[in-house]
Order: sequence, then C-alpha cells, then structure tokens
Amino acid sequence: MNQLAILGPGLLGGSLAKAIRARVPQCRVTLWVRRAEAVEEARDAGVADFVSQDLAAVVAEADMVVLCMPVEAMPEIAARVAPLISPRAVVTDVGSVKGCVVDALVPIFRKRGRFVGSHPMAGSEQSGLSAARSDLYEGAVCIVTPHTGADPEAVAETCRLWERVGCSISTLSPEEHDRAVGLVSHLPHLLAAALVDFVCAESPESVNFCGNGFRDTTRVAAGPAAMWTGIFAANRAVVVGQLDRMIGRLQAISKDLAAGNDTRIYEFLANAKEARDRLNR
Amino acid sequence: MNQLAILGPGLLGGSLAKAIRARVPQCRVTLWVRRAEAVEEARDAGVADFVSQDLAAVVAEADMVVLCMPVEAMPEIAARVAPLISPRAVVTDVGSVKGCVVDALVPIFRKRGRFVGSHPMAGSEQSGLSAARSDLYEGAVCIVTPHTGADPEAVAETCRLWERVGCSISTLSPEEHDRAVGLVSHLPHLLAAALVDFVCAESPESVNFCGNGFRDTTRVAAGPAAMWTGIFAANRAVVVGQLDRMIGRLQAISKDLAAGNDTRIYEFLANAKEARDRLNR
Repeated sequence: MNQLAILGPGLLGGSLAKAIRARVPQCRVTLWVRRAEAVEEARDAGVADFVSQDLAAVVAEADMVVLCMPVEAMPEIAARVAPLISPRAVVTDVGSVKGCVVDALVPIFRKRGRFVGSHPMAGSEQSGLSAARSDLYEGAVCIVTPHTGADPEAVAETCRLWERVGCSISTLSPEEHDRAVGLVSHLPHLLAAALVDFVCAESPESVNFCGNGFRDTTRVAAGPAAMWTGIFAANRAVVVGQLDRMIGRLQAISKDLAAGNDTRIYEFLANAKEARDRLNR
Repeated sequence: MNQLAILGPGLLGGSLAKAIRARVPQCRVTLWVRRAEAVEEARDAGVADFVSQDLAAVVAEADMVVLCMPVEAMPEIAARVAPLISPRAVVTDVGSVKGCVVDALVPIFRKRGRFVGSHPMAGSEQSGLSAARSDLYEGAVCIVTPHTGADPEAVAETCRLWERVGCSISTLSPEEHDRAVGLVSHLPHLLAAALVDFVCAESPESVNFCGNGFRDTTRVAAGPAAMWTGIFAANRAVVVGQLDRMIGRLQAISKDLAAGNDTRIYEFLANAKEARDRLNR
C-alpha cells in the first residue's frame, strides 16, 4: 500500500489516518473532506499528508480508498469516486450496515476499482475528528463482508488494512453481518435511547439519582442522532424484527414478575448473568 | 459515633467498614457475618475491629447499626437485632427498595432503636467482600428516606454517616424513592438482562462481534441474580408498571421505524442524545 485515500474526516476516518501514519509511515495518506471549514481543521490536526475538498486530487493516485461517511451518503460519493480512481484500486467502507451498502456500491465499482465492504466495530458515542485517536482500532473486531463475486485479492488487502491498525478480522456475508450487528449494536442503541427518553418523560428529576449503572446502560444514546437515524433506516427490516421479538420477551418477563413467578425471574437473571460474565473472559 | 455495627460483609457492608476505618479512626467498627467461612475472610481482610457470627456481641454497644444484607433477609435480621441493641441506637439499612423495607422495619424498631431507611447508590455488578473498597461511596448519591414519625435526630445522624464516607445526600419519601430508583436502576437492570438473554437466544455467536457499546449497555446484567430477584420482588408493582409503559414506548418506536417515519426516529434519538449529554455535565 503506497497511498491510502480516506474519504471523510470523522471519528473513524480521522482515527484510520492517524493509525496508518503511526504504523505504516511509508504510506502516503490523503484525506477528502466535504466542508471548507473541515479542511483547516484536518490540516491543523496533521492527520494526513494531503487534505483537500477535491475528490480527484485525493483519490487519483491511491491504491486503496476507504469511504468513511454516514451510510446514506455513500452511494452518491461512490458514484463520484468511481470514474476518478485507478481501475485496480481497492475500495472499502466503514459503514455500520452492509447489505444496502454492498448492494449499492458493487454495481458502481464493477468497472473501476475493486470493492469489498468492511465494518470496523470501533465506533463510540463520540464523533468527529477531535475524538479521533491513533489507537481507536486496537483490539477491535472488524467484520469484512465479501459479496458474491468479490475479488479475493481485494478481500485479502482489505483484511490486511484493518489488521495493520490493530483489528482482528471476522468474515461474514453482508446479510449475516446485518443480523449480528443488529443484535449487538443497533438494537442496544435503540433500547438505550428509548430508556433515556422514557425515564425523562416519566420523571425528569429521577435522573438526579442515577448511578453508574444508568450511565453505562445509556452511554451509547449520546451517539450522533442523524448518523443513527441513517443506520436504522439502512437496516430497517432487521432492526424492526429484532425489536418486535425483544418486546415479546419483555412482555413475558413483565407477566412473570406481575404474577409473582420469581423462580422464572431468577432463572432469567441467572442466565443473563452467566452470559454477561462470559463476555469478560 | 463511638461504635458502628455493620451487619453483612458484602460489597456495601465491607466498603462501609473500610471507609469508616479510614475516615473516622476513633470509631470502633464491629461486623456481623452469617456464615462461619466469612468470619475468617473478614478477619483476614482486616476490615473491622471485631468480626463475629454472634449478633448480640456485634450490636450490644453500638450507637449506630447498618443492615447490609439482601432486602428480603432484612425483616428476619431486624427482628433478631431489636431486642439486643441500645434503645437509642440509630438503625439504618442499605436496601435498594425502601417502601417494603421501611414498612417492615419501622414496627420492629418502634420500641428499641431509632430506624431510618437509606440507600447509598454505590452498588455495581460486583459483589462480595473481595470487591469492597474504602472509596466506594465517594461521590455517590445516598437517598435517605424518613418515614412519617421518623426521629429527626436519627435522620440527621444517618445523613451524617453517609456524608462521612463521601456521599451527597438526597431525601425522598420511601414511595418517591421506589419510583425514582425503579426508573434509574431497577428498570435499566431488567432491560440489560433481557437484552443479553435475548441476543444469546437469537444468535449466541453474534456476541463475538460485540463492541464497547454492547458491553456498556449490558454491564449491570452481571449483578447477582438472587439479590436482583429480591429487589424486583420488593418493588414489584412499581417495576411492572414502568416496564409496561416502557414496552408501550418501544412499540411506538417500532411502528415509526417500520413505517419509514424517520423524522420521528430522528427526533426521538436527538431528544435522547440531549438528555444523555446532560448527564455528563
């Protein structure tokens, strides 16, 4: 990898730029930003060798291009990028949803570039270049999602990119990805946001009594609302199905608790504790 | 305060013992433990001046007694303690539910001892003496719940105890406490446990892809199952009501998301983000 073009200077793009500069110093890093104000910010932060609003100047010489913008913006940017890149350039993205991104981007890059979807699971409730860190990806899981017909060499190069910044790699189909990430990321985000919203609606003053438990349980709800609206829309059918089944589970728990069926409540809590304890091993 | 008797060597009792020894060295700390094995453990940990299974020996000379056991065990222990203590001893507890604890303990201590309920909100998913820390209470909120007819001096002494170990004090009626803590602690615990349970039932392998968001959102679910079963039982009507209204909110969100009403989804997420951000100020 001689030149990496990163499109979008947010938490994920900015952290990738910093990580590659720290770990692969011989690689030139170019960064595309959409807004004029962001050019100065990114230059001042010194995250890339070249920062510009000019997409062609950023991607023309790149052998790898990473789309780091909200999922709903990807098709438009991808369509602008495709005619500008080397036909052999590997293109990937950091979107939190893969089915619709892969469906939209595969045809765009069919003739120029070799596209493979990926999702480094290193986001947080923070956002923006100011939160970017060169160690953001260390120890994170990155799910690479080769589609039918993906170029095996491009898949390997995509995996290599994320390994270089410290990720461990898993491979799933785009559809498997969306179901798994729906469960461990999208549904938890929705529940955390719904909990904050509900508690404030029931009794705004009760949050004065919150401890670390409430803070932990709701932390992700501080994530950017527009970005998450886009994620839920992009994984709509999966999230609605999972949420509805989760509601069914909560209704069963409510029924057991109301009926004084404390043996069932204990069994449920003991199962949950055992499963949660396994996460720490 | 010349002698503090702590009944129960768990996370909260053990941490209170350590905190008082560190901050109020002139106060003698006595500790009652139920199980024979726990006597040696507590003595080895050096958390108290005197450790015993003999309730009379632990409480006889105490001017303050703190019940630090699961809420469902409190009435039985309180009934054994009442005949053994000084008539002027202040008695409090650390139970996470106050309505039923106060209802049960006020008559027990009507003739001997002066009871006031309290709830230092310093618990975590950890438990046991091995997790006890002298700084556990620093910066925590302690809700003191004077009942009708509570002795004002005993209320003041209870507040003073928790202030000495670093808590800031709020005062609520037992019923107000149970509603507020239901929202910020009991309901979040139930949702976190239900989420872990649901995700493992839907797809056990998906937890391999979990990031910090899932870990944060579900952390409290590692709390002791038996203790939490007791808490839910003790605050049953409040928790069932709050859970059912929360389910209603989730159903509305599911409907908006399924219908593609993304403006409503955005508004809900933006409100939740704003509320969660306020917690960090």
